[in-house]
Amino acid sequence: VRPWEPSPPLSGASYSAVELSGDATRVFMLDQRLLPAEERYLVLDDAALVADAIRDMVVRGAPAIGIAAAYGMALAAGAARALSPADFRGAMEVAGARLVATRPTAVNLAWAVGRCLEVVGTSADHAGDERALAIARLARQIHSDDVAACKTMGRIGAELLAGVGAVLTHCNAGALATGGYGTALGVIRAAAARDRSLRIYAGETRPYLQGARLTAWELARDGLDVTVVTDGMTAHCMQGGRIQAVVVGADRIARSGDVANKIGTYAIACLARQHRIPFYVAAPWSTVDLATPSGSAICIEERAPIELTHFGDRRIIPEGVNVYNPAFDVTPAELITAIITERGAFAPHDVAQGAKAAAGGGARHDA
Amino acid sequence: VRPWEPSPPLSGASYSAVELSGDATRVFMLDQRLLPAEERYLVLDDAALVADAIRDMVVRGAPAIGIAAAYGMALAAGAARALSPADFRGAMEVAGARLVATRPTAVNLAWAVGRCLEVVGTSADHAGDERALAIARLARQIHSDDVAACKTMGRIGAELLAGVGAVLTHCNAGALATGGYGTALGVIRAAAARDRSLRIYAGETRPYLQGARLTAWELARDGLDVTVVTDGMTAHCMQGGRIQAVVVGADRIARSGDVANKIGTYAIACLARQHRIPFYVAAPWSTVDLATPSGSAICIEERAPIELTHFGDRRIIPEGVNVYNPAFDVTPAELITAIITERGAFAPHDVAQGAKAAAGGGARHDA
Repeated sequence: VRPWEPSPPLSGASYSAVELSGDATRVFMLDQRLLPAEERYLVLDDAALVADAIRDMVVRGAPAIGIAAAYGMALAAGAARALSPADFRGAMEVAGARLVATRPTAVNLAWAVGRCLEVVGTSADHAGDERALAIARLARQIHSDDVAACKTMGRIGAELLAGVGAVLTHCNAGALATGGYGTALGVIRAAAARDRSLRIYAGETRPYLQGARLTAWELARDGLDVTVVTDGMTAHCMQGGRIQAVVVGADRIARSGDVANKIGTYAIACLARQHRIPFYVAAPWSTVDLATPSGSAICIEERAPIELTHFGDRRIIPEGVNVYNPAFDVTPAELITAIITERGAFAPHDVAQGAKAAAGGGARHDA
Repeated sequence: VRPWEPSPPLSGASYSAVELSGDATRVFMLDQRLLPAEERYLVLDDAALVADAIRDMVVRGAPAIGIAAAYGMALAAGAARALSPADFRGAMEVAGARLVATRPTAVNLAWAVGRCLEVVGTSADHAGDERALAIARLARQIHSDDVAACKTMGRIGAELLAGVGAVLTHCNAGALATGGYGTALGVIRAAAARDRSLRIYAGETRPYLQGARLTAWELARDGLDVTVVTDGMTAHCMQGGRIQAVVVGADRIARSGDVANKIGTYAIACLARQHRIPFYVAAPWSTVDLATPSGSAICIEERAPIELTHFGDRRIIPEGVNVYNPAFDVTPAELITAIITERGAFAPHDVAQGAKAAAGGGARHDA
């Protein structure tokens, strides 16, 4: 069940969305499509297989996709170790392009591949093994940085959730969506560590059911009080006073503070506003895309109709009926109470200030 | 496939949620749990079986449940035809109580059973066959009145949808949820008959998927342009300008104009308000419960967790996780643009005026 042993997983849990083998020749990826029924790891020894797995949603969640892509680059570097500097560069660019093409919305994917290509640029003339090691080292660094960022977000976000009786989350922004610990679920974990009476509502998140299958699985494993509701029930729960705060993750945050996240997030933000409930977004700084001015510039991935028309082998929508299947939506900054990153909690319009925090030596201004 | 033949179905379509055999000894009920995969009718010869079928959601939709219950009463009257007047009354009261207990939220159920018991009260002393015939006649009248009401609602509602490019509906308030033609879908059918370019969005309606399975099936059969989206996508569709109006059905309408309907309706009403989209409720007058002062007095049925935890045989929520499964929610009158009944379209706060319309000889004041 734990193929990375005897090495410890970087996730810090007894499970991990994605890990690299000690010799950097294999990527272990938890097949999240099988959860909660089965906990099975795929063993991938080729960057193209990693790309396929990302596209097929074996792994999902913007930060985890970024880490998986970095590990894919490590495999590509290992495979190309004997090539000339020029051919090495070329092979790495091909691998990177293939990985980036798998999912268009999550910015962490392009960010992680870009960081790997920077190291390719500076190390291509080095000895083959050294070049491959440099990429593997960077990929592991991206992974452990992400876990550390989640822990910091948890600390910052838990302050904001003080006194909240029940919190709603959407999709899965947990350990399974990140290097470990989680963004939105990291905040919830940290808040629950302070107040064990915290109740958590997980929206089931159609069509892929990440809330029902993954968030419930993670939180139940931690022994937390989690209740699954359908996406259509959250307004009713808010109306009845069952929910005092919302925390979700993000796939891309524009300079304006607009946030792309799993489809259904925008609906919850509208409903939170209408019920005067704070709406928080938690995401690592790598999700902030200052090159994208606002939400309208974010490409929204449309996925195959079969995700709606079928459930397993069973057809639930009659043939000949149209289906619209956008995987993400955009929540405008004005509906967001705060964006929680490892660099601090920002009013959404001020999110770009996080760049200064980094330039100034990583100083954080926690809200 | 059409067990009522050679009699014509009262639904007016090539299918019907529920019909009574010509000799009033059998109820034919389309097993909606199998749609869209299979079109199969159950043949029920006992009122207790009709009650079981209502509880198990073979048939659903407030008006259709009311009609099914009336047909159940007809079966009970046939079975009790040889009893003394006192025993006949007793048997009918037992059958009625059993039918009413199956689903607590839809008012049409209690209304239809109540009408049958009134006829029992006035006919119990008559000859056995005559008593049974009177109940069967009333049940068929309830059925055909409902179809006529749907047609009238369609005419009234189509006026309100004039010029709308695309309309969203939720759950199934169609022929399958009524005697035939439908309430919300009746309005949509009538609007589409005037403007063949009308596009219809059907929210899939978790957990039972009535939108995906039933509304899509009905509308595709009519050759209409229907697109299924998940419940979490409707806000995104409104944000993108894809939807210009919402029409839903109702399970109970309080004197205040508050409306109980399938879970998820309240969310859509909130989102419609936020996006300045008109939100219409279409329901027969039998759904208006003037004895219920406001939405807070409406009992909201909670259904079994298995509707969320499993999909067919497959478990999608891990064991040990809580589930909350309210079947309905309440939309406050202030979020509703108009309530469309066969007695006219009313501002929600004025819905009680429909009672006067009836008292005054059925005069309608169309909006």
